[in-house]
Amino acid sequence: MEKKKIGNIKFVEGGVCAAKGFKANGIQCGLAHKPLTSGESVNVNPAAKKKNDLALIVSDRECAAAAVYTTNKAKGAPILVTKKHIADGKARAVIVNSVNANTCNPDGVEKADKMCVLAAEQLGIAPEDMIVASTGVIGQVLPIEPIANGMKELAEGLSYEGNGAALEAIMTTDTMPKEIAVEFEMGGKICTMGGMLKGSGMIHPNMATTLTFITTDADISAELIQRALSGCVKVTLNMASVDGDTSTNDMVCVMANGMAGNKPVVHEDADYQAFENALYNIMMNLARMMARDGEGATKLVECAVNGADSDKTAQIVAKSVICSSLFKSMIFGEDANAGRIYCAIGYADAEFDISKVDVDMCSKGGKIALGRKGCVVEFSEETAKKVLEEDEITIIINMGCGAGSAVAWGCDLTYDYVKINGDYRS
Amino acid sequence: MEKKKIGNIKFVEGGVCAAKGFKANGIQCGLAHKPLTSGESVNVNPAAKKKNDLALIVSDRECAAAAVYTTNKAKGAPILVTKKHIADGKARAVIVNSVNANTCNPDGVEKADKMCVLAAEQLGIAPEDMIVASTGVIGQVLPIEPIANGMKELAEGLSYEGNGAALEAIMTTDTMPKEIAVEFEMGGKICTMGGMLKGSGMIHPNMATTLTFITTDADISAELIQRALSGCVKVTLNMASVDGDTSTNDMVCVMANGMAGNKPVVHEDADYQAFENALYNIMMNLARMMARDGEGATKLVECAVNGADSDKTAQIVAKSVICSSLFKSMIFGEDANAGRIYCAIGYADAEFDISKVDVDMCSKGGKIALGRKGCVVEFSEETAKKVLEEDEITIIINMGCGAGSAVAWGCDLTYDYVKINGDYRS
Repeated sequence: MEKKKIGNIKFVEGGVCAAKGFKANGIQCGLAHKPLTSGESVNVNPAAKKKNDLALIVSDRECAAAAVYTTNKAKGAPILVTKKHIADGKARAVIVNSVNANTCNPDGVEKADKMCVLAAEQLGIAPEDMIVASTGVIGQVLPIEPIANGMKELAEGLSYEGNGAALEAIMTTDTMPKEIAVEFEMGGKICTMGGMLKGSGMIHPNMATTLTFITTDADISAELIQRALSGCVKVTLNMASVDGDTSTNDMVCVMANGMAGNKPVVHEDADYQAFENALYNIMMNLARMMARDGEGATKLVECAVNGADSDKTAQIVAKSVICSSLFKSMIFGEDANAGRIYCAIGYADAEFDISKVDVDMCSKGGKIALGRKGCVVEFSEETAKKVLEEDEITIIINMGCGAGSAVAWGCDLTYDYVKINGDYRS
Repeated sequence: MEKKKIGNIKFVEGGVCAAKGFKANGIQCGLAHKPLTSGESVNVNPAAKKKNDLALIVSDRECAAAAVYTTNKAKGAPILVTKKHIADGKARAVIVNSVNANTCNPDGVEKADKMCVLAAEQLGIAPEDMIVASTGVIGQVLPIEPIANGMKELAEGLSYEGNGAALEAIMTTDTMPKEIAVEFEMGGKICTMGGMLKGSGMIHPNMATTLTFITTDADISAELIQRALSGCVKVTLNMASVDGDTSTNDMVCVMANGMAGNKPVVHEDADYQAFENALYNIMMNLARMMARDGEGATKLVECAVNGADSDKTAQIVAKSVICSSLFKSMIFGEDANAGRIYCAIGYADAEFDISKVDVDMCSKGGKIALGRKGCVVEFSEETAKKVLEEDEITIIINMGCGAGSAVAWGCDLTYDYVKINGDYRS
């Protein structure tokens, strides 16, 4: 899919290894086969058999670091451990596994701690400098042996081109790898930032919404990274929804090792703006990829709301539309049922006058007016079909009363979503 | 499916015609074929071709009446007209059509008014004594001619056994007729109450959630009907969800004509309690039928939450579980993925300690513990399979901290939901 660009950045290759001084690796340590609690053996994800399931990302130098986490009260154990480790604003490496979420287990924290110790030993760093994350099935005890056995190979294989191997290791039902990197300028120095993201189900705009790891060689304080990250997550990942389910294990973290040699950024100056813009571009593009790769999805849907009394109202309305199961089914069926869009706008939890609301729809196939002032208008079914045949469709909503705006990203609801989730464990 | 009974009531036959003095009828007036705005002709619902699409329910005497409506800001025109007519607490008859929702159209109110006038003329009553409702496609102009042409036949065919014909006329994607009636006692007199419900998609607990018409021969004030209805809707229809979409046209109305001859109920006394209990039984059973007949559904899911700090918290948690797409897909796949239940509990928008929460699952196939104190426990996959094979499954959640409780009803998410909604208009 096409990348979108805002402001002064340049897309480059390399994902989480694009920035100076970041190595990565991924291996298959054997978590794909794991004992069930009942003693049986089951292959969680048939495709995972040949897929990596354990990854490391390591910086040559200590990093300033910040993160945001899921708001779910059933938090994955790795989140509790990472929060503790990152409290000092510092980190050096990430250890992450797929297949098993290490959540809702009595020994979750113990296992997450152990993962940090095992990785830190191999890397010769302190366990407290590790970020740890897990994704996969909830509520099955994490077998630590495959991770212990694989750690040496994982560490020895670290390389400045290891982003692809690491990325493969964090994927679950993802059908496409999701990574991106940009170059930007701070104080005359070229800086680089790259990110990778895992996620295609259990995705909803209620916090970090996914596993996302972002690395940069910019020199910037942990406090400012946190500020930029908290701001960007609201208008990027939190505005993307696949199925309305907020995961237990969501986490986005940013590590900055300062190796670009820029003047350290410690105030909200022009350099900070450049950093924030780079971060926005990384996260916005990852959010779009995530929505497009929603479980079973065939189309990316963008809902752009403007003319609202506030950005907040615009956000609520945009999310209401992209989260509607009826709307999502209609996109899959390529059926221009404009009434369903008004319906989803109408039940958005915000105050506004629906009789002022206009709705348009566009894609590479054309542009069409669906509604004016709260009423569905006459439109050519033929043109509507052409618009809906495309892979990327935009719904444009004008609330007719102010300057508030927002964009949200979603996907269609398909037979395959049901298929994937009807039988995820077996 | 089996009826559920609370308190002192007896199930009887007859639906909305069970109570004394209520006639009904339904005909096919031809709304199934209607011109599109572009001039083409399309058959909205192939099954609707031979199906009734226009219904009348009429009381022999004037009724005390009350209603609750959708909270959607895009309100169907019939709702605006009914609200005005019912403001005096009186009504005599209901006119309702399916196929076209008469919503998001510039001439909606005009058409809804016209429907009342046409029906009132035939019945020899005032148009202001009519309740009017519509359900079907949103945003297409309602053709009034078929309704005008059919009204005489519709009125002439009214009978005390017309409940089935009327019920057929309000169905859209419903696969089974949904009606129920009960006998109960007030002050030594036998009273009867019956109801019918339409609804299987665009259903979510955010207000009336459906078209529901309830008739009774009890003698009770409009004010008390409203009180009982507003209370019952919160714990019945508002606790049922199919797809999270709150319709534009939802309405539940109750008409009481007093022909049972009981002493008029004007205070919250024992008779009022009996009335309220009858209404609860009608609405609870209709809510269960609605969830079971959710678009594409193969199973009814009941989520019973107890031990919460308040009923409100219990309601929020119960709804969070039955609304989760991942949970619904897992029920369809008969996969006991207990982690997903904790996940959905965890993101419920209420304050509680997830480490105190226990989860069980039961059906006619057996009962099984899925989780204790926030952690998934070992369970037999074999027993779980037996529980999940059944058509009606109950999830029992104990929050471990108080006496608050609630029940919510939902269904599984299936391929057919996507199929039905991917191509609803054509």
